[in-house]
Amino acid sequence: MAENIGMCARAMANFGLSDLRLVAPRDGWPQKTRMKKGAYQASAGAHDLLEAAQLFDTVAEAVADLGFVWATTARERGQGKPVVAPAQAMARAAGDMANAKPVRHGILFGAERTGLDNEELAIATAIITFPVNPQFSSLNLSQAVLLMGYEWFRARHGEALPFSRPNLSPPVPQAMLQSFFDDLETRLDAADYFIPDGKKPIMWRNLRNILQRLEPSEQDIRSLRGMVVALSEGRMRRSGKKE
Amino acid sequence: MAENIGMCARAMANFGLSDLRLVAPRDGWPQKTRMKKGAYQASAGAHDLLEAAQLFDTVAEAVADLGFVWATTARERGQGKPVVAPAQAMARAAGDMANAKPVRHGILFGAERTGLDNEELAIATAIITFPVNPQFSSLNLSQAVLLMGYEWFRARHGEALPFSRPNLSPPVPQAMLQSFFDDLETRLDAADYFIPDGKKPIMWRNLRNILQRLEPSEQDIRSLRGMVVALSEGRMRRSGKKE
Repeated sequence: MAENIGMCARAMANFGLSDLRLVAPRDGWPQKTRMKKGAYQASAGAHDLLEAAQLFDTVAEAVADLGFVWATTARERGQGKPVVAPAQAMARAAGDMANAKPVRHGILFGAERTGLDNEELAIATAIITFPVNPQFSSLNLSQAVLLMGYEWFRARHGEALPFSRPNLSPPVPQAMLQSFFDDLETRLDAADYFIPDGKKPIMWRNLRNILQRLEPSEQDIRSLRGMVVALSEGRMRRSGKKE
Repeated sequence: MAENIGMCARAMANFGLSDLRLVAPRDGWPQKTRMKKGAYQASAGAHDLLEAAQLFDTVAEAVADLGFVWATTARERGQGKPVVAPAQAMARAAGDMANAKPVRHGILFGAERTGLDNEELAIATAIITFPVNPQFSSLNLSQAVLLMGYEWFRARHGEALPFSRPNLSPPVPQAMLQSFFDDLETRLDAADYFIPDGKKPIMWRNLRNILQRLEPSEQDIRSLRGMVVALSEGRMRRSGKKE
């Protein structure tokens, strides 16, 4: 189906894969204008990948230039082939492709409803299956493509994320933190927070520990000081009015 | 959209997740009969999950009972929250949920086109982002759900696959293997395979190594013996005819 092809292209692009090969798609390829539009829309912009997609009549032709063929299947098929998880398979693929003489790997996915048939499976070197809920084990086609792309990317690039926690402003110097705590303590004393008096040491230590757990930056401490002042002087202003 | 909700339910069911919470879906929920049908079809059978889905007006209400809230986003949003990869996040979640006092984790996903807005992101304890191609980083909603389900399942159950390589018939006993090799050697000698004669030791060792790499079972050796006999006696029969 056009939408499935588009979704697969998008999933591949998410993980930097580009060599999409189609074997006898139900509705042909490239498709009639209306259906082609469906594929392109579902690809969410992975148009280059769709333009470059190759069409084959048989699986055998589609894999002819590859050195290692993985087949994905959700059910045991009695062909005695090795069965591995996606991460293990893609570790092998990344290793082989980084060789001085790279070995090209390909991954076969079956049609949405029927999966790969036994003849197609026989072409594969080994089988990939997913660690899933055994009571509900059938993945949507593009979901299966996405998972393999994800593990490929991780095998190739590690856990490299497209962004990380932004650089916080530098950690607050201890002197500034101490001055914040001194001010806070004065205000809390004035507000009769430490009751009964004998509990003050432990109450005050707990409170400082909570705030230190933030690993606060200078900016955090400025924000917190503003909050403390507002709360404290707002309260004093209200008290002032009452008097 | 109905189809997106159905696809998400399917992805959750694939990995044994069941607590689907919807926040102000564009078309309402439960939906009008025609749209509901779309969601149920896209769920590929995960109907229980759709029946049990809870509807909320706001993210804050949807997460009210949770102890830890993850937000998924493809872009840095300048909120200074910790940013982690899916595997790391789900290792933390699996640990917290296995505690004597389990901490319930939830994962927020934004709407397909717009993602989570800054107010929604502010509710989260930490951010999850995916290791993806930075030039094409936006995952389809149900694809993001699938990836998190996958990593949740791996964190909870390890790499447990729904099936493994079938039990092969037992490895061939060395005596049977030796008898197969003896027969093969005789037939190859008769067929003048080992030419020139001085190369026989290395040719024969290579051939045995290839066959041993199969780690053959008894059944494999019976099959191979049948093949060898057929090739050899077929050839002899043909030779017989010619004579």
